Formats: sequence, C-alpha cells, structure tokens
Amino acid sequence: MCYTPSQYHLYQEDFEIVVVIDVLRATSAITAALHYGVERIIPVATIDEAISYKEKGYIVGAERDGQVVEGFDFGNSPFVYMDNDMSGKTVVLTTTNGTRAIQIAGDRKTVVIGCLNNLDILCSWLAEQHKNTLILASGWKDKVNLEDTICGGAIADILIESQKFQCVEDSTVAAKFMYRSAREHLWSFLRASSHRRRLKKLNIQRDVKFCLTANTVPCIPILRDGALVKLVYEPKTWLTAEMMAQ
Amino acid sequence: MCYTPSQYHLYQEDFEIVVVIDVLRATSAITAALHYGVERIIPVATIDEAISYKEKGYIVGAERDGQVVEGFDFGNSPFVYMDNDMSGKTVVLTTTNGTRAIQIAGDRKTVVIGCLNNLDILCSWLAEQHKNTLILASGWKDKVNLEDTICGGAIADILIESQKFQCVEDSTVAAKFMYRSAREHLWSFLRASSHRRRLKKLNIQRDVKFCLTANTVPCIPILRDGALVKLVYEPKTWLTAEMMAQ
Repeated sequence: MCYTPSQYHLYQEDFEIVVVIDVLRATSAITAALHYGVERIIPVATIDEAISYKEKGYIVGAERDGQVVEGFDFGNSPFVYMDNDMSGKTVVLTTTNGTRAIQIAGDRKTVVIGCLNNLDILCSWLAEQHKNTLILASGWKDKVNLEDTICGGAIADILIESQKFQCVEDSTVAAKFMYRSAREHLWSFLRASSHRRRLKKLNIQRDVKFCLTANTVPCIPILRDGALVKLVYEPKTWLTAEMMAQ
Repeated sequence: MCYTPSQYHLYQEDFEIVVVIDVLRATSAITAALHYGVERIIPVATIDEAISYKEKGYIVGAERDGQVVEGFDFGNSPFVYMDNDMSGKTVVLTTTNGTRAIQIAGDRKTVVIGCLNNLDILCSWLAEQHKNTLILASGWKDKVNLEDTICGGAIADILIESQKFQCVEDSTVAAKFMYRSAREHLWSFLRASSHRRRLKKLNIQRDVKFCLTANTVPCIPILRDGALVKLVYEPKTWLTAEMMAQ
C-alpha cells in the first residue's frame, strides 16, 4: 500500500492493478455516481482542465479544500451525483487529492476505485484477478490521512484473510492493523481525523456518514480510455469483512 | 509524525524539535553507545564520508542493507558499541536509513534520538520542553516501515495521554492506534515486518530482541555541532507507558 501519491514512484513498479482510494469524498462520490446512473466520469487534475470542459458544455464538478470551487455547480458530495438528472450523463470531476491520484496511476496501470461503500465487492473482484495489486491512498496534499489508510487496511485485511494474497510491504501490514483498531468504532475513531475536522466546519455530516458506511454501493468503477465507467461484474464468491455499518 | 525522510519537507515547518527514530538498528545502537560510554557519535550520510573519517584514524561503523560494509569493522549492532574499548571514544557512523534522517533534520532543528530502549525518559524530557515536536521515522529506503511507525506511535501515545501535547497530524493518530494494536505482543507483531524478515536472514536475532525491548537504556542522545552526545537529564516527573518488555 502507498499512503500518498507523492510516494507512488517508490511502489509502482511491481504492480499491475492500482486501487485508488479517497474516502472523503472523491472515490465515494465516483462509486455512488456510477452506481446510480452516471455513464462516465472523466477525472481531471487541474481546475483549468475542468474549466475547459465546462466551456464545452460538460457537467463539471470541482472541489478544492472540501468546498465547491467558485464558478462550478458541484463539488464532490456523493449525493449530488445520485440525482436522476445525472442519469446517462458524462461528468467531469476534479478534486483536491483523489482525481490527481487517479491520473498518476492511470498512466500505465489498470485502475479501479475503492472506498468503504464498495469494500466487499471490490475485494471479491480483486481476489479473482490473480494480479499484483497496489492500494494507493490519495491522502491530504501529499500527507498521510486516516480514513484512506484505514480503508486501505480494510481491503488488505480482507484480501490477506482470503489467503489469495501475500503482503510484501510494511505499509500494508501497518494499515491492516490500524483498520483492526478502528473497525469496531469507525465513526468515533475518525473524530480524530484532521480531515474530518475540516469537513465538520463545512457542515457536511451527511456526506461523511455516507462515506464511512461500508458496503452500501455494490459498484466498481474502472478507468477505461481516460474515463471511469462501471465494471460489469457479479462475484462468484463474495469476500466480506465483519465491518460495522455505522 | 513523518513516516519517511522523503516526506520531511511536508512537515518540517511547524516544529522546533525533531525526534529521529530508526529502531532496527541505528538509533537503538546510538542510544546504547552513548549510555555505555562512547563520548560522541558523528552521523554521516555517505560511505565516502565514512571512508574519509576512517583514513583519519576514527572508529567508523558503516551499515548498508543490514550488513557491515566491506572494509569496515563495525555496522550498526548495538552490542558492538557497548564494549569497554569504545569508552570515551568518538565514533563515526553511517547507516542505510537512520543517519540520513539525522542529517536531514539536523540542518535547522533541535534533534534528539528516539528508540524503544529510551522511550519513557525521552517522553519525559519532551514533555518538559513545551515545544512543537515532530517524530521523524527513518523508514526503509524512503518507504514506511513497521517498527519505526510503532515506536513513533508509542511516543505519541505517551505524550498525548500526558495532556501536554495535542496531535495535529493524521499520521500521528494513525501511528498511535497502530502502536495500541501492537503493544501487547510487539514481538509477534513485528514478525510481519519486512525489515525484521530481512534481518532474520542475517542471524541477528539478539540485536532485534534488544532493539524491541522498551526502557532498557535511560539515555537521550542529542545533536550538538554535528555530533550526537548524551544529554544530561534527570526527569522531574517520569512519563511511562504500560509497555511490555518482551
């Protein structure tokens, strides 16, 4: 597991699949959007790219520092993209951390999107691929954050327990044990998260609660030709963690 | 807390004291050396610098990838530096990760050395300083490692519980919870550590056991004029963790 995009170069060589995580809120929003009807999501790294898409008539979401960027109608709240009006549409999205991580990894690898909402279905799919898999947390401006590390630890725990994966990096072992400390009381644990504290100021408790609830959205977004689309997939065998919905 | 030297630039601004950790084995060896009589330790980052000191007649230890570098008599085994022959001497040391971290931080900050061996006395001293404090793990070749993260988590846990410190970084909270998962069975926990697996191959179980035992060496090394020396310090109030000696 790689805790931040800034360390990706240290880890990338040995892996064929990269799971990008940005629990609060980009990858949760992307997963919900595709599950509830959005056709494609084009992740872009910069505001300039987002503006250029907006000028071409696209629906564009842009978030920086937890807030909707001025001049845009949407940010990265999952609920926005679950609206019926979005159904069948292409959405362009740029966020502080998540879309940058997707772009960094998308260059050369198979990229899928992970969050707590799609935890079990994602792990079930990963276990069927028989590929070396890297979990890439988006972090917060290149620093480690708590919620992405815990989500990565949850994925690692499920995959290791399935005995279909071996763990080669200390960072993965560390995240797994952190998740085990956290899983019984994820909500109170994340009170300690600086990111959650930032979001609290922005009055988006409903988003946070949605994003921290496991296995509510059975959808795996996958990057194809620069856009995230819903992977057509029905698990042969479900892998599950005993994880509380909060 | 900063998990690797490569991320130090993201964290350094707000802190006056930096605690450098390299549990296996550099900072454990440095702490033991100064406690058992070595006068000064000059940390150097490169083998070339080490050779140049050796040519001047210094006692020089050089370790890379867990092994003594060819042409040198010592590596980073703590027991080497606890020898009576070393008493009163100046030692020059270069290691894969630890001495590099000391040099990076030593540029502008007050640098002290942390390990499990000096856990309580170090925390007691830090609590008396009333300064913003950064824990800098040496990691393994810029990647996160388990033992340094846990040791940093132990320091964080003690300081936060003392109510003299507040935690501003998610990485610190994460390390603290990881330590709490680990503390009851540190030895078996670290079996999962890739670094420990590397060291096992090198037959240095005695070193590893020494380095993973808390509070055996009441000494705080501090960097002064480019050399580590023993800080003269007697705690007014001891801070302690309920940590098992393994």
